[in-house]
Amino acid sequence: MSIASVFAQEKASPKGGQKLESIEPQPFIELPAPQRKGGLPLYEALNMRQTNRKFAEKPLNIQQISDLLWCANGVNREDGKRTAPSARNAREIEILVFMEKGVYLYIPDKHGLQMLFEEDMRGKVSSRSDMPEKAPVCLLFAANRSKMDGFDEDAVRFYGCTDAGYVSQNVYLYCAANKLNTVVMGAIDRDALREVLPFDGDPVLAQPVGYPVEK
Amino acid sequence: MSIASVFAQEKASPKGGQKLESIEPQPFIELPAPQRKGGLPLYEALNMRQTNRKFAEKPLNIQQISDLLWCANGVNREDGKRTAPSARNAREIEILVFMEKGVYLYIPDKHGLQMLFEEDMRGKVSSRSDMPEKAPVCLLFAANRSKMDGFDEDAVRFYGCTDAGYVSQNVYLYCAANKLNTVVMGAIDRDALREVLPFDGDPVLAQPVGYPVEK
Repeated sequence: MSIASVFAQEKASPKGGQKLESIEPQPFIELPAPQRKGGLPLYEALNMRQTNRKFAEKPLNIQQISDLLWCANGVNREDGKRTAPSARNAREIEILVFMEKGVYLYIPDKHGLQMLFEEDMRGKVSSRSDMPEKAPVCLLFAANRSKMDGFDEDAVRFYGCTDAGYVSQNVYLYCAANKLNTVVMGAIDRDALREVLPFDGDPVLAQPVGYPVEK
Repeated sequence: MSIASVFAQEKASPKGGQKLESIEPQPFIELPAPQRKGGLPLYEALNMRQTNRKFAEKPLNIQQISDLLWCANGVNREDGKRTAPSARNAREIEILVFMEKGVYLYIPDKHGLQMLFEEDMRGKVSSRSDMPEKAPVCLLFAANRSKMDGFDEDAVRFYGCTDAGYVSQNVYLYCAANKLNTVVMGAIDRDALREVLPFDGDPVLAQPVGYPVEK
């Protein structure tokens, strides 16, 4: 079952530009349970960790999306803590998932995807690269300021960056373990992307993911 | 063989406060080859990823130090690329290793440790926490400005933070896979630590590592 066909079963159609809070009701995609056992042995995953910038069009399936997002920043304990640490346990890094069918917000506590926009907005990620458009999935890591109560401005910026790095490395290792290509991108259109966020936040890094191009 | 006994075989004794460039000759510790196969399966390592703030005094052995540092930011390809990505392939994150016997700089290209100070400086890492002193090893991740040619000041700060996050997550996963405790610390004494660096750089995060306290 492809992720695209799952999303096609959903009905609601929020319009581009709307904020999450203003949209009622929202289609919500419950992801299948992630794999929490097995996978490539850690040292081999680290040994295979690398950047690859070319992507085949082939989409990921929904189990891959589930595993990718859980590895990135999923809940790994009963108290809601995550696979990636965060400053003062703020859990401020949010993941937006850009795909052909739309833009979704990953909700770790429910391990699901909240639709934000029912349109292909991968082209908005970077005006300096077409990698997000070439990949079937482009993740955006953004720091949610509403979860950083008590952080001063320096700390908001500092930890927004460090904490996005943790999440992005998890994506690299998932890809290394599953023979998928990925590249982290700092050259993204942060001002335009800020408008896409359903919260007051700072886009930090983007990371397209996809199959290698067959030779 | 304990790391302490290996270091005890070394002879040179640079004085605290000296910069690396001014010290000649320096003792250099060649680390044993890191494990690049095996390890806990990736999904299980991510499932076990967590912060633990209590450390037993028991030191790590030199193979553990080797594996820890290689996982963190070791060379995993013939072109010198690393287990952690870096902006524009600058490879600017350096790791200082604070132990009872001294402070060392990890040299990924040689997979070895360059002694910087032959004294216990773990207490300098943070005036707000004794965790670095309680742990047998405290890593410091610092961005080396001399490796960031062409980065403007915003980029130096931004990528210094994101790129330290990648390295720190690798340490978390090594610890998760090997039943070691670790905690990342942002509350460190950056101005004092800047003086410890043998390069023009910015201390970003510290991360003590050690065995759990036996119950």
